[in-house]
Amino acid sequence: MLQETAKAAWEYGRQFLMNGRVADYIPELGKANPVYLGLCIKTPDGKTVEYGDVEQRFTMQSICKVVCLAAALQQEGFDKVFSHVMMEPSGDAFNSILKLDTASNRPFNPMINAGAIEIINLLAPTFAFSDLLEFVRAICMDDDIVLDEAVYRSESETGDRNRAIGYLLKSKDVLTGDVLQTVDLYFKLCSLSITARSLAGLGLVLANGGVHPENGIRLLSAQTVRTVKTLMFTCGMYDRSGEFAVRVGIPCKSGVGGGIMASVENRMGIGTFGPSLDEKGNSIGGGHALEYLSRELHLHIFDSETG
Amino acid sequence: MLQETAKAAWEYGRQFLMNGRVADYIPELGKANPVYLGLCIKTPDGKTVEYGDVEQRFTMQSICKVVCLAAALQQEGFDKVFSHVMMEPSGDAFNSILKLDTASNRPFNPMINAGAIEIINLLAPTFAFSDLLEFVRAICMDDDIVLDEAVYRSESETGDRNRAIGYLLKSKDVLTGDVLQTVDLYFKLCSLSITARSLAGLGLVLANGGVHPENGIRLLSAQTVRTVKTLMFTCGMYDRSGEFAVRVGIPCKSGVGGGIMASVENRMGIGTFGPSLDEKGNSIGGGHALEYLSRELHLHIFDSETG
Amino acid sequence: MLQETAKAAWEYGRQFLMNGRVADYIPELGKANPVYLGLCIKTPDGKTVEYGDVEQRFTMQSICKVVCLAAALQQEGFDKVFSHVMMEPSGDAFNSILKLDTASNRPFNPMINAGAIEIINLLAPTFAFSDLLEFVRAICMDDDIVLDEAVYRSESETGDRNRAIGYLLKSKDVLTGDVLQTVDLYFKLCSLSITARSLAGLGLVLANGGVHPENGIRLLSAQTVRTVKTLMFTCGMYDRSGEFAVRVGIPCKSGVGGGIMASVENRMGIGTFGPSLDEKGNSIGGGHALEYLSRELHLHIFDSETG
Amino acid sequence: MLQETAKAAWEYGRQFLMNGRVADYIPELGKANPVYLGLCIKTPDGKTVEYGDVEQRFTMQSICKVVCLAAALQQEGFDKVFSHVMMEPSGDAFNSILKLDTASNRPFNPMINAGAIEIINLLAPTFAFSDLLEFVRAICMDDDIVLDEAVYRSESETGDRNRAIGYLLKSKDVLTGDVLQTVDLYFKLCSLSITARSLAGLGLVLANGGVHPENGIRLLSAQTVRTVKTLMFTCGMYDRSGEFAVRVGIPCKSGVGGGIMASVENRMGIGTFGPSLDEKGNSIGGGHALEYLSRELHLHIFDSETG
Repeated sequence: MLQETAKAAWEYGRQFLMNGRVADYIPELGKANPVYLGLCIKTPDGKTVEYGDVEQRFTMQSICKVVCLAAALQQEGFDKVFSHVMMEPSGDAFNSILKLDTASNRPFNPMINAGAIEIINLLAPTFAFSDLLEFVRAICMDDDIVLDEAVYRSESETGDRNRAIGYLLKSKDVLTGDVLQTVDLYFKLCSLSITARSLAGLGLVLANGGVHPENGIRLLSAQTVRTVKTLMFTCGMYDRSGEFAVRVGIPCKSGVGGGIMASVENRMGIGTFGPSLDEKGNSIGGGHALEYLSRELHLHIFDSETG
Repeated sequence: MLQETAKAAWEYGRQFLMNGRVADYIPELGKANPVYLGLCIKTPDGKTVEYGDVEQRFTMQSICKVVCLAAALQQEGFDKVFSHVMMEPSGDAFNSILKLDTASNRPFNPMINAGAIEIINLLAPTFAFSDLLEFVRAICMDDDIVLDEAVYRSESETGDRNRAIGYLLKSKDVLTGDVLQTVDLYFKLCSLSITARSLAGLGLVLANGGVHPENGIRLLSAQTVRTVKTLMFTCGMYDRSGEFAVRVGIPCKSGVGGGIMASVENRMGIGTFGPSLDEKGNSIGGGHALEYLSRELHLHIFDSETG
Repeated sequence: MLQETAKAAWEYGRQFLMNGRVADYIPELGKANPVYLGLCIKTPDGKTVEYGDVEQRFTMQSICKVVCLAAALQQEGFDKVFSHVMMEPSGDAFNSILKLDTASNRPFNPMINAGAIEIINLLAPTFAFSDLLEFVRAICMDDDIVLDEAVYRSESETGDRNRAIGYLLKSKDVLTGDVLQTVDLYFKLCSLSITARSLAGLGLVLANGGVHPENGIRLLSAQTVRTVKTLMFTCGMYDRSGEFAVRVGIPCKSGVGGGIMASVENRMGIGTFGPSLDEKGNSIGGGHALEYLSRELHLHIFDSETG
Repeated sequence: MLQETAKAAWEYGRQFLMNGRVADYIPELGKANPVYLGLCIKTPDGKTVEYGDVEQRFTMQSICKVVCLAAALQQEGFDKVFSHVMMEPSGDAFNSILKLDTASNRPFNPMINAGAIEIINLLAPTFAFSDLLEFVRAICMDDDIVLDEAVYRSESETGDRNRAIGYLLKSKDVLTGDVLQTVDLYFKLCSLSITARSLAGLGLVLANGGVHPENGIRLLSAQTVRTVKTLMFTCGMYDRSGEFAVRVGIPCKSGVGGGIMASVENRMGIGTFGPSLDEKGNSIGGGHALEYLSRELHLHIFDSETG
C-alpha cells in the first residue's frame, strides 16, 4: 500500500511542475531540467520505495543548513549554539538582512542564510570541509556525495549577498572568524551533490531518533534530533514554512537545488527532487507530493488519526 | 505519578515568578498579583490534576485568538479564512504593523493582533458577542465565563494601536466591516474572564480532536483542530514561539493576562495562570512549568520516546 | 522678458503631460483632466504673469500642510511645534507609517501626513475650520477659496490610512485630541479649492518675508517664513524632494490635486496647476515648468549667478 | 565686526562641549581630546578670521564624501553619477543598509556611506589614491594634508559594516569594481588629516562658485558646486540634516572626526573642529558656533534680511 500511495503522490506532484520555475539567481542552477521529479521513501525496517528521478544528482543548497546545525549541536552543545543564533522564524526571505540590522544582532534562526553562516563560523575551527563531507555522507547514508565544482564556482561568483551578511555579522562581533573563508565553506556545503535517495536517508536517520537504522550507530543525540526537527518544522520551508506546517505537518527542509528532505517520526524518511520551484524557492512537485502523502498516510503531526 | 510530576512542575514554575513582570500597558492588568501560579491538567479519561491558583479568574487576552480562529474555520471554512490571513510566523511583535505595510496586505497569521482583528471581521456578520461567549463557554467547558467589565473598559481606553491596525486593514480593503465595532468586539473577547481550569478544558477539547470528552459532542472538525494546533505551535507564544517550540514542543497559546493553554495530542489539556510575564508577554511561571512537564512526561512532539 | 520665459516654461512643461497620470487613490481626483496646465507668477511689485489654466479650481491637498505649519508656528511657537514633530526628511512616502513605528514617536516632519495630522491636532483647540479657511484665503490672497464638498466626501470615504496614522499617533500619546475629528479637519483642509493664481499668491507672501505685498500687513513672522521655506525645500516634493532641490533649487510644495506652490526669495511667488502627476505624486508639467524657470532665470538658491 | 562675531561664536560653541562625546566606534578616534574647538572663516577677499584650535590636525571622515562627489561630477558628469546614486535624504543613519535592501538598489544619496562607496567605485578606475590626495590638497588649499596611518589602520580594522555595504551593492550589480579595494580607498580618504583651516578653504572654494579665490583657477564647474551644496544642505549633517537646515540654513558637511565644513554663498567658507559630538555624530561645539554665526550674520539661505 505504501508503494501505491507513493506512486500516486509522485504522479500528483508531477501535475504541478509546469507552475514553477527553476532557480536562476545562481546561473549554474538555471541549467536544471524542470521536468525531473523523484520521490524516495525509506522506512526503519530497511524498505525503500521510490519513483522517478531518484538517482539524479543535484546540489544540497539550503538543506546543508540542517547538517550544519546538527554538527554544531553535537560538537558545541545546545547552549553554545543558541547563544549565537536564535530559534525564531523570521517572517522574512531566507537571504534577508533586515532583521540583522533592526531587530537582533543574532540571526533569527539557523535556517536562514545569516544563521547558517554563523553556525559554520562555529564549526570552522574544528571541522575542515573534508570532515563535514564525511559527516554528510554518513548522515545521508550515501558515500557518493561529492563537491559539484561547477555549482560551487557559480555560487562563489554570485555569492556577494552572503558575503555582505558575513561582514555584517562580523561588524557586530557575532561572526568571529574570517568572513570570506566562512562564506566559502558555506558555498561548498551548498554545492554537495546528492540525490532524492540521500535525502530519504537523512530523513530516516532523523526519524529514527539519530540512530543509523542499518548499523545501529548513534549519529546524533536525541536532543540534537529533537531540536533539528523542531526548527525544520517552524523554519524549514523558507517563508512558506508556516503554510507548509499547516498543510503538510511534517518537519521538512528544502533547497533551491530542488530537494526536500522530510522526516516522519519513527515512520519514514522522505527525499524528493524536483528543480521546478514555487516563488518562495520550494520544489513545487516535491511539495505537492509530500502534501499528498501526508493526507493519505496521516503523517501530519497534529493529525488525530495518526498512529 | 502525573500528580507528583504536576506538583513538581508547579513548584519549579514558582521559582521564576520574581524574574518576570505583570503587564502594564493595559492599566487594569497592572493590578494583577505576580505571585499567583495555577496549573491544571485534564485528561481524556475525565481526570483533573491541579495545583495553586486554578480558580482565580483572569482575562483571556490573546488566547481568544485561538477561539476566534476555530470559530472562523468552522463557520467560513479553511480556504475562505486563509484568503484573509496568512499562516506564517511574522518574526515581529504581536502588535506590530510593520509587515502589514511592507510585506503583505494580509496579516501574517491569526495569532498576531492584525490577524485576530481580521478573523473577527469575518465572524462579525454571523456572530454576536453573546454567540461567541456561548462558544467560548462550551469549548472551555466553563459556564461561568463572563465579560470582565473593568478590563474591557481599560482595554478600550488604551486600544488605539489596535484601532490603527484596524484602519490600516480597512485602507487595504482587507477588513470590510466597521473598524471601531470590529475592534470593540476584539476587546470584549480579550476581556473574558477565565481560569487555569477553563484553559485546561479548552486544551483538552483540542487534544481530543475537537470532541468534548464528557458528552462526546464534536465541537470542532478534525481539520479545524489540526490547523489551530499547528498555528499555536508555530505562532502561539508571541515572538518566543520558535524557542518555545524547541524547548517545550507542545502547541500552546499565551495571553498577557497570564494564561497559557496547551494541548497534548490525545493525552491532556493543560492550563496555567501566572500574571508575571517574561519580556515577550508569556507567563514566566506557566512557561517554566510547561517546560518541566514536557521534559518529564516526554510531551515534546519530536521527543522520540513519546508514547 | 519674464513674460517670454514664463510662456516658454509653460510650453516646455506641457510636453511632459502625457508621461504622467492623474491621482486615482481618491476617486474624485481621478476625474481631473490631465491636459490642464496653468502657470502663474506674481512679483512683489504687483505684477502677474500667467499662462494656461490659471483660473481652474482644484483642491489644495498636501499644500495645506504648509498653511497648517505656518499657522501652528504663529500660534504655538517654534519650540512647541517641534516638540511634536521633527524636521527631518523621512526618505519614505508621504503616507508611510513605517518610521512612526520603528524610528520615532514624533512624525519625521510636518510635510508627511503623520506630521500634518499632528500639526492639526495642535491647531484644533484654537482654530475652527472656518478660522483656518479665513487664514488660507488671506495668505493665498484669494477670497473665493471654498470647500470642495465632493472631494471632501471622497477623501473622507477613502481616508482610512490617515485614520490609522491618527490612531497610531494617539496610541503613542503624541496626538492628544479626538482622532476622527482631527483627521476630518485634515480632509477638509486638503479639499479647499484653489487655483494656480492662489498658489502664486501664497508663494509671494512667503517670498516677501511674510508680509502681504499689497496692503503691507505682516501675516507671518520672519522666523515662521524661514522655517516653512526650509522645510518646503527639504521635504516639500514628497520623496522626490532631494532631486527637486538639486534640479530646481526653490522651496516648493506640491499636492496630488496637481498644484505646486513655489517661493523665490524676494523675487516671486509661483503657482502651477497640472493634475498629470509623476510616480511620486508631483505635477509633471508644473515640475518641468519650474525647472525651466529656475534654469533660465537663475532661481536656484545655490546658483552662483543669482541676483 | 566679523572678528568679534567669530570670537563670540567660538565662545558660545565652547559652552556645549561637555554635552557631547568623542566618537569611539573607530578606536583611534576615541583618543581625541573633547575640549578642542577651532573656528576658521575665510572670505573671498583673502581675509582669514580664526579662533582656537585651528591648526590641530584631525581626520576628514565623512567630509571626504563632498570631495568624492565633486570629483565624480567633474569626471563622470551629472547624469552618470546620478544613475548610480540617488539625491534623496534617507531619513536613516549614515551607515544604514535598510533602504538598500528595501527601497532602492541605488544608494539614497552620496552623503551616506553606501552612496560614498558607490561614488568611489566610479572614481576608482580613473583616480589613484595619490590623485585624489592631490585633488583634496588643491580644493582645501592645504598642501600639508597627508594620510593619518593610525586612523587608517583603525578604520580598516573596524570597517566590516562598510564591507557589508560594499558587498550588498556588489550583489545588486550597482558596485562593479573590487569591493575590498573600493572600501579600502574609502577608508584612506576618511583618514586624510586636515585642519579647521583646510575646511574653511574648501568651504570658500564652494562659496566662490568653484574658483580658487587666490589664483583664479576654476577647480569645479558651477553645476558641480550647485549640486554639491544642495546635497550638503539636504543631507550633510547625518540624520540631523533637516534640523540643521532649519536652524542654521547653510550648506554644511560634518565628519565624526569632529570637523564641519560650511559654505556661505559668495560670502565665506567656514571650518570648525571640535571632536565632542552630538548623538548623531555632528561636532557639538562646531554646530553651535555655526548656529550663532548664522543668526548674527544672517547667513541662513532663507533669512529675508540676507545681503
